[in-house]
Amino acid sequence: MSEYRSQLDYFFNPRTIAVIGASPKHGINRAIFSNFLKSGYKGKLYPVNPKYDEFEIDGRKFKVYKSVKDIPDEIDLAVISVRAPLVPAVAEECGQKGVKTVIVISGGFKEIGPQGAEREKKLKEIAKKYGFRLIGPNCVGVLDTRTGVDTFFLPHERMARPKPGGVAFISQSGAFAGAISDAAAMENIGLEKVISYGNKADVDDADLLEYLKDDDNIKVIAIYLEGIEPGEGPRFMKALRETSLVKPVIIVKAGKSKRGTAAVASHTGSLAGSYEIYRAAIRQAGGIEVRDFQEMFDTIKLLLTQPLPKGNRVLIVTNGGGFGVMSTDAAEFEGFEVPELSEELQAKMREVGKYPEIVITHNPVDVIGDTDAWRYKAAIDTALPSDEIDAALVNLLMQVPNLGEEVVDYIVEAKRFNKPIVVAYIPGVFANKVVKRLDEQGVPTYPTPERALRALRNALDYANWLSRMRSKVTTNV
Amino acid sequence: MSEYRSQLDYFFNPRTIAVIGASPKHGINRAIFSNFLKSGYKGKLYPVNPKYDEFEIDGRKFKVYKSVKDIPDEIDLAVISVRAPLVPAVAEECGQKGVKTVIVISGGFKEIGPQGAEREKKLKEIAKKYGFRLIGPNCVGVLDTRTGVDTFFLPHERMARPKPGGVAFISQSGAFAGAISDAAAMENIGLEKVISYGNKADVDDADLLEYLKDDDNIKVIAIYLEGIEPGEGPRFMKALRETSLVKPVIIVKAGKSKRGTAAVASHTGSLAGSYEIYRAAIRQAGGIEVRDFQEMFDTIKLLLTQPLPKGNRVLIVTNGGGFGVMSTDAAEFEGFEVPELSEELQAKMREVGKYPEIVITHNPVDVIGDTDAWRYKAAIDTALPSDEIDAALVNLLMQVPNLGEEVVDYIVEAKRFNKPIVVAYIPGVFANKVVKRLDEQGVPTYPTPERALRALRNALDYANWLSRMRSKVTTNV
Repeated sequence: MSEYRSQLDYFFNPRTIAVIGASPKHGINRAIFSNFLKSGYKGKLYPVNPKYDEFEIDGRKFKVYKSVKDIPDEIDLAVISVRAPLVPAVAEECGQKGVKTVIVISGGFKEIGPQGAEREKKLKEIAKKYGFRLIGPNCVGVLDTRTGVDTFFLPHERMARPKPGGVAFISQSGAFAGAISDAAAMENIGLEKVISYGNKADVDDADLLEYLKDDDNIKVIAIYLEGIEPGEGPRFMKALRETSLVKPVIIVKAGKSKRGTAAVASHTGSLAGSYEIYRAAIRQAGGIEVRDFQEMFDTIKLLLTQPLPKGNRVLIVTNGGGFGVMSTDAAEFEGFEVPELSEELQAKMREVGKYPEIVITHNPVDVIGDTDAWRYKAAIDTALPSDEIDAALVNLLMQVPNLGEEVVDYIVEAKRFNKPIVVAYIPGVFANKVVKRLDEQGVPTYPTPERALRALRNALDYANWLSRMRSKVTTNV
Repeated sequence: MSEYRSQLDYFFNPRTIAVIGASPKHGINRAIFSNFLKSGYKGKLYPVNPKYDEFEIDGRKFKVYKSVKDIPDEIDLAVISVRAPLVPAVAEECGQKGVKTVIVISGGFKEIGPQGAEREKKLKEIAKKYGFRLIGPNCVGVLDTRTGVDTFFLPHERMARPKPGGVAFISQSGAFAGAISDAAAMENIGLEKVISYGNKADVDDADLLEYLKDDDNIKVIAIYLEGIEPGEGPRFMKALRETSLVKPVIIVKAGKSKRGTAAVASHTGSLAGSYEIYRAAIRQAGGIEVRDFQEMFDTIKLLLTQPLPKGNRVLIVTNGGGFGVMSTDAAEFEGFEVPELSEELQAKMREVGKYPEIVITHNPVDVIGDTDAWRYKAAIDTALPSDEIDAALVNLLMQVPNLGEEVVDYIVEAKRFNKPIVVAYIPGVFANKVVKRLDEQGVPTYPTPERALRALRNALDYANWLSRMRSKVTTNV
């Protein structure tokens, strides 16, 4: 057991799993079992269902146990999907068995009223009595793309599973947990762990943050948050602050408006609370609040691949004057400076790049429509490493005739300057092929400069928070 | 000639074209000629180049003329791409020939300083003397996807050509004209006419607006605008107002920030002017100002397919509680109401849809994760036609197992209520297939509720402007 640093590890990397309620019939209980097979879980899988002695699923035969207690093995994780009234008894058996972690998929708890709340209280007490950790009830549970733990009952043909990668996503909403996993798969963004905790009778956001903080495979954490339970605010904010000191935490907060707050109440029964208070608290604790999932993915892409900016001075290189103007507008809107470059840098750029007279070496640098890739390289390699610039936004209009694909290599090579680079482009069949190569090689691309710079701004805000926190620590010492 | 309602028609639907400077050598002058062939221009094409008697391009042989005056045919459009110093003489010959319209692709005019400005002045005088209309100089000219007029020198393998459709795009930037055409092709948005007018020695935005106003094939006009020449403001605003009374005009304004305004000056030499003044003037004239090209396309998709909203009360139907909350937040942010539905409507919906207890019939209506398509149909068909609702935002999380693809048909059928419908979804392989069918059948889809509602908001602002203008007219009578 020494390889397990926390009890929560058993949720994500269990050696053995009991699936209680597993069934060969179509529906959720077949899907839950079957998805473990499809997701490539390598440990031992034990179906539990008193109705069967054995069954066949996806061409594989399984011995079925009447009770978790009958399994001749230690159980690291029990996944429970049985009718709500049966859950407490089944959980009791898990406790007696010494199961280390339990995910209760079943609904029918506090979300349905007083009777369900009573049932949930009982479940919580059982977990406490036996010392197992509990995710749920009323949740889709855990997807770990590295280990193949997959309690999501969404079918593979509806919801593609993403590849493993440096991101963990925590979602109060089960539907979003599934949909975001699917979107990440399509966008080719690696998503290592997805957790939807439902009613959070035990494991909650704060627990998960603390856990993921110490998981070295996870570089960025993203949370979809509707609200925090009354009294849990300080614990959450402490976990957020401590985690943010180690890695960025992105938060999509729902329930911002009057009517939206009311909708939260009927969705999960959480109190969305005053958005302004949340907003301030999240910022203070170092969380990166984003408006929507698009901005979440935009920011994830940047944080996964780029160093944090050390300042707000952006170099813009464009081959479309108009695109340069829009990029400059967006930069200023997001609080960046687009500083004039020194005469020295401009002269060097012009010389190295063999620029014709008409190329503009002010910032935004406009290498104009007949540019080749070399003009880009000269601009980036001259200005980005200088102490006049903190980050680069490269505009690529790939529709022009002379711009070779080696511009991709030149941009990727500029990562050696260890300053963030983002690329904005206008989509197109050829253009998309080119920017895909950039994304694959760790340079984030965006279909508008606005989105590129918003993501960069989020990284800058986080970097500034980090350095404020660090200087505080230094001062105190 | 009676089928031509305006002299500008000859730019877009010429029976004959002279391409002056056409060359079989690789480069711009080959591309310009070759692209007419590739784009399927059906009229007569005459190459002019004193260096050749004949040449072969793309497997077709052409007799080449020494001068436009030698062509034994009337010429509706002359496309000039020769070195700048030669342009005035060539234009003079076009005038003598009685050519009706001229596009000057060549650069080397007012954008290069006093000598070029002098040359441009001369060109302008020649146009005036002979009475031909002129687009350019220093431009990529005209792309008409219906007639195959295509002076864009961007190669087809770099810049796909869009299908014909209800949109015209006017761009001060040639690079954007190309890139946006390419993006439209990829997004399968029909783009009928694209005009990049460069230095606008003659034809300008106001002329084009007046012209496109009366073109029944054009349903929506979009403009990329950096600035208006000093003194031209009132004419532009008048054309914008008059056109907006007939069809929506979307404007992407660049040069909003201090640094961006400076960049405009070095790009086209235009005065971007105070953004606040532009903004107010555009609004007053009925223009729909959008932030970027993404919002431009989002809004075009809606305006092409949906009726204008008559009010700001939105029905939200969701199968993810969290998605409903985010949609509600976005609605309130964009100034929409998400009104509580009457008891009567809620009861009817519940009955028709055979909703289980757990479905929430307040607005946002949450048909929950195990929904089938029928629950959507019941919600939409009950609430949308009622006098409590002006528009619908449908959330689709297609990742859930029971939601059949017939939801597409149900949503498309709801177009009969003649109120705008927009769809927000979370991308995914399966989800994207489904929403593609919606887009193809004229229901616009968006990967976030924020984008859907921003587009709807633009339509509402336009609708409100229209009704204010109309009531003004009525009052005056």
